[in-house]
Amino acid sequence: MKRSLGAKTLLYPAPVLVVGTYNPAGKPNVMTASWGGICSSQPPCVSVALRQATYTYENIIKRKAFTPGIASEDQVKQVDYFGLVSGRSVDKFAATKLTPVKSQVVDAPYVKEFPLVLECKLLDMSDLGLHTQFIGEVIDVKADDTIIGSGGAVDIKKLRPLVFTPDTQDYYGIGSFVGKVFSAGKDI
Amino acid sequence: MKRSLGAKTLLYPAPVLVVGTYNPAGKPNVMTASWGGICSSQPPCVSVALRQATYTYENIIKRKAFTPGIASEDQVKQVDYFGLVSGRSVDKFAATKLTPVKSQVVDAPYVKEFPLVLECKLLDMSDLGLHTQFIGEVIDVKADDTIIGSGGAVDIKKLRPLVFTPDTQDYYGIGSFVGKVFSAGKDI
Repeated sequence: MKRSLGAKTLLYPAPVLVVGTYNPAGKPNVMTASWGGICSSQPPCVSVALRQATYTYENIIKRKAFTPGIASEDQVKQVDYFGLVSGRSVDKFAATKLTPVKSQVVDAPYVKEFPLVLECKLLDMSDLGLHTQFIGEVIDVKADDTIIGSGGAVDIKKLRPLVFTPDTQDYYGIGSFVGKVFSAGKDI
Repeated sequence: MKRSLGAKTLLYPAPVLVVGTYNPAGKPNVMTASWGGICSSQPPCVSVALRQATYTYENIIKRKAFTPGIASEDQVKQVDYFGLVSGRSVDKFAATKLTPVKSQVVDAPYVKEFPLVLECKLLDMSDLGLHTQFIGEVIDVKADDTIIGSGGAVDIKKLRPLVFTPDTQDYYGIGSFVGKVFSAGKDI
């Protein structure tokens, strides 16, 4: 028998996205967001949903680009800080001593020290209520060599991305390999 | 120095959503999808993106409801099977011996044996290319008592959701607690 928990967004796991943007004057900013995910394979698209009150919301509308990046577990302090303060009042790169890198393919910066970043051009947006969903077309992905496995693909155990838990608001890491997709269920 | 991986949807972690629907005749179906996430807090909304060729795509359009559910690691065989075959040719509930339960709040079924389910009413949809994104308003969440922690919230270590890895196409589990959100970065 299941119990009712009410109308809540209890989807697990949620990602921890570090979203890089420029303001109209070209100042780099970055904020942390967990409302987002993949939404199309061709064209490759991802979504990030933000409150209108955020600095990043304004920046995306004005510059038409953003870079969802993925940090590793070891960088949790910086990631959390990026969600605690606003770029309106603080230079988050200076405060964390991290380095903004200008994307060569979209009009947005990303964090040099974080291992993976998706460089996105704004494709569409829709107001859903408290949050506005931005859909970005992935123009390129940049990755550190340290997260690439022997087969040439991103290895999640090398990347060690953070997981956000909506109900308790914690960060978790990634656990063990469980099975292969399109294979584990073949002998049902 | 980062390397370019091309235009790919390499967002980590991706969820493993088991999406329940009814066909026009009222037959329950379920499919596995990893393109999705949370997209608004108020109203509470989640997105799931599906190819137009899927049976679930038709069902959502006709019944205006769907239920993204979360299985635990132990149920990986059934979850993977739900992504391997089409409900057009197979009764997936009969094949896996799992039990469809009719939602009391939306026009869709969910899997009784899976620990968590979001009961969603179709709010919006948009064609993005290969995938169409469905946005569902969460009307209620149903959870097994076994995944509720001592504080009354969903405990991810009891839920043990699967993680999908886009590049290598594997299932992983959840690891250890890393830090508290809005706290870990306070002493930057």
